[in-house]
Amino acid sequence: MHSHNAAIVPLEFVGPIKIIGKEVCDEVKVPMATFESPLWPSTNRGAKATFAAGGIKATLVDDRMSRSIVLEAIDASHAVELVAELRTRHEELENLVATTSRFAKLKDWHVQIVGNLLYIRFAITSGDASGHNMVTAAAEAILNWILREYPTMQYVSISGNFCTDKKVSAVNGILGRGKYVVAEIMIPSAICNGVLKTTPDKVVNLHIKKNLIGTMLAGGLRSANAHFANMLLAVYLATGQDAANIIEGSQGIVHAEIRDSDLYFSVTLPNIIVGTVGNGKHLDFARHNLQLLGCLEPRLPMVNARRLAIIIACSVLCGELSLLAAQTNQGELMRTHLRLERVAKDTKQL
Amino acid sequence: MHSHNAAIVPLEFVGPIKIIGKEVCDEVKVPMATFESPLWPSTNRGAKATFAAGGIKATLVDDRMSRSIVLEAIDASHAVELVAELRTRHEELENLVATTSRFAKLKDWHVQIVGNLLYIRFAITSGDASGHNMVTAAAEAILNWILREYPTMQYVSISGNFCTDKKVSAVNGILGRGKYVVAEIMIPSAICNGVLKTTPDKVVNLHIKKNLIGTMLAGGLRSANAHFANMLLAVYLATGQDAANIIEGSQGIVHAEIRDSDLYFSVTLPNIIVGTVGNGKHLDFARHNLQLLGCLEPRLPMVNARRLAIIIACSVLCGELSLLAAQTNQGELMRTHLRLERVAKDTKQL
Amino acid sequence: MHSHNAAIVPLEFVGPIKIIGKEVCDEVKVPMATFESPLWPSTNRGAKATFAAGGIKATLVDDRMSRSIVLEAIDASHAVELVAELRTRHEELENLVATTSRFAKLKDWHVQIVGNLLYIRFAITSGDASGHNMVTAAAEAILNWILREYPTMQYVSISGNFCTDKKVSAVNGILGRGKYVVAEIMIPSAICNGVLKTTPDKVVNLHIKKNLIGTMLAGGLRSANAHFANMLLAVYLATGQDAANIIEGSQGIVHAEIRDSDLYFSVTLPNIIVGTVGNGKHLDFARHNLQLLGCLEPRLPMVNARRLAIIIACSVLCGELSLLAAQTNQGELMRTHLRLERVAKDTKQL
Amino acid sequence: MHSHNAAIVPLEFVGPIKIIGKEVCDEVKVPMATFESPLWPSTNRGAKATFAAGGIKATLVDDRMSRSIVLEAIDASHAVELVAELRTRHEELENLVATTSRFAKLKDWHVQIVGNLLYIRFAITSGDASGHNMVTAAAEAILNWILREYPTMQYVSISGNFCTDKKVSAVNGILGRGKYVVAEIMIPSAICNGVLKTTPDKVVNLHIKKNLIGTMLAGGLRSANAHFANMLLAVYLATGQDAANIIEGSQGIVHAEIRDSDLYFSVTLPNIIVGTVGNGKHLDFARHNLQLLGCLEPRLPMVNARRLAIIIACSVLCGELSLLAAQTNQGELMRTHLRLERVAKDTKQL
Repeated sequence: MHSHNAAIVPLEFVGPIKIIGKEVCDEVKVPMATFESPLWPSTNRGAKATFAAGGIKATLVDDRMSRSIVLEAIDASHAVELVAELRTRHEELENLVATTSRFAKLKDWHVQIVGNLLYIRFAITSGDASGHNMVTAAAEAILNWILREYPTMQYVSISGNFCTDKKVSAVNGILGRGKYVVAEIMIPSAICNGVLKTTPDKVVNLHIKKNLIGTMLAGGLRSANAHFANMLLAVYLATGQDAANIIEGSQGIVHAEIRDSDLYFSVTLPNIIVGTVGNGKHLDFARHNLQLLGCLEPRLPMVNARRLAIIIACSVLCGELSLLAAQTNQGELMRTHLRLERVAKDTKQL
Repeated sequence: MHSHNAAIVPLEFVGPIKIIGKEVCDEVKVPMATFESPLWPSTNRGAKATFAAGGIKATLVDDRMSRSIVLEAIDASHAVELVAELRTRHEELENLVATTSRFAKLKDWHVQIVGNLLYIRFAITSGDASGHNMVTAAAEAILNWILREYPTMQYVSISGNFCTDKKVSAVNGILGRGKYVVAEIMIPSAICNGVLKTTPDKVVNLHIKKNLIGTMLAGGLRSANAHFANMLLAVYLATGQDAANIIEGSQGIVHAEIRDSDLYFSVTLPNIIVGTVGNGKHLDFARHNLQLLGCLEPRLPMVNARRLAIIIACSVLCGELSLLAAQTNQGELMRTHLRLERVAKDTKQL
Repeated sequence: MHSHNAAIVPLEFVGPIKIIGKEVCDEVKVPMATFESPLWPSTNRGAKATFAAGGIKATLVDDRMSRSIVLEAIDASHAVELVAELRTRHEELENLVATTSRFAKLKDWHVQIVGNLLYIRFAITSGDASGHNMVTAAAEAILNWILREYPTMQYVSISGNFCTDKKVSAVNGILGRGKYVVAEIMIPSAICNGVLKTTPDKVVNLHIKKNLIGTMLAGGLRSANAHFANMLLAVYLATGQDAANIIEGSQGIVHAEIRDSDLYFSVTLPNIIVGTVGNGKHLDFARHNLQLLGCLEPRLPMVNARRLAIIIACSVLCGELSLLAAQTNQGELMRTHLRLERVAKDTKQL
Repeated sequence: MHSHNAAIVPLEFVGPIKIIGKEVCDEVKVPMATFESPLWPSTNRGAKATFAAGGIKATLVDDRMSRSIVLEAIDASHAVELVAELRTRHEELENLVATTSRFAKLKDWHVQIVGNLLYIRFAITSGDASGHNMVTAAAEAILNWILREYPTMQYVSISGNFCTDKKVSAVNGILGRGKYVVAEIMIPSAICNGVLKTTPDKVVNLHIKKNLIGTMLAGGLRSANAHFANMLLAVYLATGQDAANIIEGSQGIVHAEIRDSDLYFSVTLPNIIVGTVGNGKHLDFARHNLQLLGCLEPRLPMVNARRLAIIIACSVLCGELSLLAAQTNQGELMRTHLRLERVAKDTKQL
């Protein structure tokens, strides 16, 4: 491809990152595409520390994709009645969804009523696709069916922002959207000192005052992290994902504490929205990278995409840990950043 | 560059987009890099409609980059005293910032005190750079100076998340971060019908029920849009920006209403964080695209970067308008999306 | 009681307010206790307008009280396993809750996992009590049972703020807490002009620019109203409620639009937290007022408390409508406010 | 007054609470009016612990009242021009405000522009009044002046919710509204054990997992506390305040940590909105209580109201500390609550 019809984002592999969860137990090198070259050595340092500590425990908590339709009822009372009736016809809804894709399976739905407006948020599982189109098709099938079955209801929108797609929200964390992954590790004090040039105490202290209190002061919403977005963006780009989904992804939470003078460090990402099939994933570089990550294997639906999400969560842990460690030391962040960027400029001719 | 050390994001130009503001008065074709191919024709349709309507009025409201340090005082009372004294020494702070870069200029600073913790958020102008590093250097200079001048104060962090970088917040909208741009247009009813296949009334109605009410139900924060993030990501990638900044960028607001039966449509983006120099911007494709956009001209500092931000806001308007128009019509979104993706797969060999 | 061991809040009745919903179809005079005397005539004006328009349609959407416990698991994986197992033992949880009160009935529960922390939010119905104590007792029974049945789990808190009680949140709106009531009305243009000295168009326009956009700019969360809190406080105090629950209550939404040149106006209050039994309700004045409202009748559990919530929602509608109407006219708010306060001071000797 | 034209809220005094700040150095008994009788002994226990620990350090950080007007400009560009011009005429604005009250003094103003809408948020100091009416009068004077001086600007609202009054927001914390008070204390481990039946470690641990993480999961906004609202409501009612202002007040932050094995505990309340003059404060019981608190002394304007705010912050600290301590012990909360309510019912005939 000619460079004038593409954006070319430099890519390096970081790791190996050692993962020891139930769904994934492996060592992987993770491709990260970014214009911010210091991200590679920084994430690498985190990978080194977590490898030395025995690997990262990763757990998949949930997996779903959502879309909310909006309808207008005669009044709130009619909206309530419709909802009550839909609850009795849940099986029909399941069947409708199943007709739209062999992968789509209705998990759950939630409603909000405002005046005579009715928002219904459907959640499905979507196989190895991130599921945006699949859930839209499922929602549309239900929408059309409702409009036929209940002629007093009127169409407002196939997507009512109670979904919510690529926008800041609380609903995506509370009701779920994408893959919900927790990655945890115990890091001995000696590794904190040796590899990360800090102490468990300093990391926890900084995390509380920066990630928890600082974010709250900023008017943050369901976020407590330093820079999840950087790692998410880099792996999303490297694997052909729609990177606009980092907006939900960025709303993740660090939990860290001292245990027996070692560091318990975890990242919780309720909204990792990725797939191993679909737009972008068919491109050469993306297939290549997904292959290397072991995410294109012949497996049951959902297994490859979940593997990818788990790898991403562990990469986020490595990058987050390393940056926090750096910020515990006065002056280190700026010094390192400048040095790494200079090195990058000197050694690369992109 | 070998495709295995880069992510290659397909890119097309949309437009021309006609811009008629004070800072920018021009017609530009805008490069958008994305894995979501339907974004191109959709944004193009918006460009066509706005061109036919005479062009988009774009206004720069503000321009700044921010970083918050965190210090620990003996108690809240000492923190208050320090703040009072810093106010009397504001000129010294300005001078300190000026020593860190010939482009950095201290604009303002705000504080938050929690217990004995003191968060100070500095805002600077940063020339044509997005300014992340520049503001960190400026903040570090002040931080070091405070620690020397006021020895009872203790270091907590060079970055306290009251900044806030690549994370959801209210502070970035309220106190400012990045370029704050408003893009507005009056679209005659006939163009709504002819080009957008909708009516002013339908667009306004959908906007209220989806962007305003739907987002609120989702627990959104200072956001009222359908998909600003998509256009931001695409132009950010195409011009070598750090695309993780779309997180703040996504927190933008549509305001639309009927005026004399025509459609007033506007997008307000308080946090466009872009530059024309710095990481990523030196890459061939990025320079090429910035050049084509007229953003690498020999001009006074800040003019090129502001031009870019204004172009981006106008692109966002085009994409947002087109998607909203599509969603006013039952079934259009899904039909079009599927058709466009099929076309993309058939005709392109990336 | 001697005036020195009580706060004495002046009280007047407003209305009659006409309510025409399924659960309540009645005309009631509503007691409002407040130090802000202009609230009475203002709410009264709204009552007059809505009475003239034929009455307010009110609909109960939901009713529940919630409490979230927090536990610590060995790691996230153990937390996920516990949740999976609890789902299979849901009936046991229902039975446990039933043992704690003859009114408590488990409706639903939701979880959040952060690192190895497990938050479980239980929702029950609580008869005619607001249910704070009842849900705490229910949650405690489950908590103790879990700690016995799953000895690796550890106690963190009986209340983990994912509940959430008397604090700003998104969860209370999304998952429900208290009585969820929608009150709606169509107000003919002539009544807008005659009683409210405004037009439907002006009210809708102001609502959009103030309640929707203005609140969003303020970094509001799931709120779009001018002053729900005032009416809530006044009726809560007058009926012996724990008025700290107005915090959740204030997070309500106005939806208004023009329909055939008349005004559709609605208030949606997802979190009205009130009871007709329990603390405060046994006091003489409270019993007296609840009696007058018809909320102490011998009825099935929940009916009295829901009646009260519906009456409150309709009072909120009246007060909200009147204030918005006033603010559509330049200068009216201040003039009226000053005049009414002066009248209050002149005529009352409290 | 006849009990049928008032709500009568039971009131008890808690304390003495020992305060050792610069603005207030005193021991006070604090009147709390509430229907929730367990609040008295619980806050009392906190008072006892803090008294034994030597008293609470309280610091006033800021003091202001705000109101935002909304105007419509021809377009965003005209709005920007108006703002630029107002900045050059700041002194005229100050003079305008001064004409509206001898206590009103313009401190600052901030703007937001959305499309062609202009929101200007004015902040004033308001003497010993909470200042709602005073700031409205000030804002109205400026509003009328702008409409005269800049005839292309159009009136939208005297209050645009960017103020924001009695509603959840981020703006009130970031830009300030009301009295901003921090109350801090060091509590020796022995007092934690003896009086509070807990340990510093347990309190800090619970605070992090409940107030910080739990609130974040709930989609909280600039809040990290267990029940600030309860204490605020009780003292507001007892001193004739407009208690709807607890909504802003509830958005406060606990910061606690271990220092040398003792407990550092602080509450930060950026939005205590109270006065010692104005509506409600003229009532007998309110005057009586304000008198006892030493808040009706002949002093310079603002001193009495600030004293009241500081006392309130210290009361909040006592109540918060005590509840957290109780929740650290499994089963204590429910047991105590039930016992105290039973005692209250047995011994009081209200």
